[in-house]
Amino acid sequence: MVFANVGTLGAVTGKRDELVARLTRRSSVLSEVGCIAYEVGTNDAEPDTVFVVELWKDAAAHEASLALPEVAEAIAEARPLLSGAFGGFHFEVAGSPLRD
Amino acid sequence: MVFANVGTLGAVTGKRDELVARLTRRSSVLSEVGCIAYEVGTNDAEPDTVFVVELWKDAAAHEASLALPEVAEAIAEARPLLSGAFGGFHFEVAGSPLRD
Repeated sequence: MVFANVGTLGAVTGKRDELVARLTRRSSVLSEVGCIAYEVGTNDAEPDTVFVVELWKDAAAHEASLALPEVAEAIAEARPLLSGAFGGFHFEVAGSPLRD
Repeated sequence: MVFANVGTLGAVTGKRDELVARLTRRSSVLSEVGCIAYEVGTNDAEPDTVFVVELWKDAAAHEASLALPEVAEAIAEARPLLSGAFGGFHFEVAGSPLRD
């Protein structure tokens, strides 16, 4: 079942765009391990927050990705840009009106 | 800019799956007006919540969709299944590590 992971990442004030740049750096490994979508963005109403929507082929693929050296490295590099405020949720996709 | 709309919909106890069925009923109109993704799902840790992730070609397309008769009808049909608890957020997509 497709797994959706949705999150809000607090950025250190003034570091939001640097965090966006870090998270959107091109990576071929994510799709190789089952990432279907990984959308990163902002909302100027919340200037110190980065928003992420991820879709994975299943929860196991998402879980396994966290152990990848590339992902661990990206998280380590992003850590100084993070304020520590996190939010979001995850769910198993049941379906879509866009497909049968 | 791609627009992401993410939401949690409270379902009347026992009506979650009926709400999922309603929201995933096949609709060709959504993609015609710019809906790129519309993923509906559940998380058994929150048995009375339906989760939705939507991606739209831009915020205007999402806004315009709310005025469509089909969408208004779907919302009206879903209303008795809703508990009134809502959550979520929206953002402009800045990019993705999955594409240049």
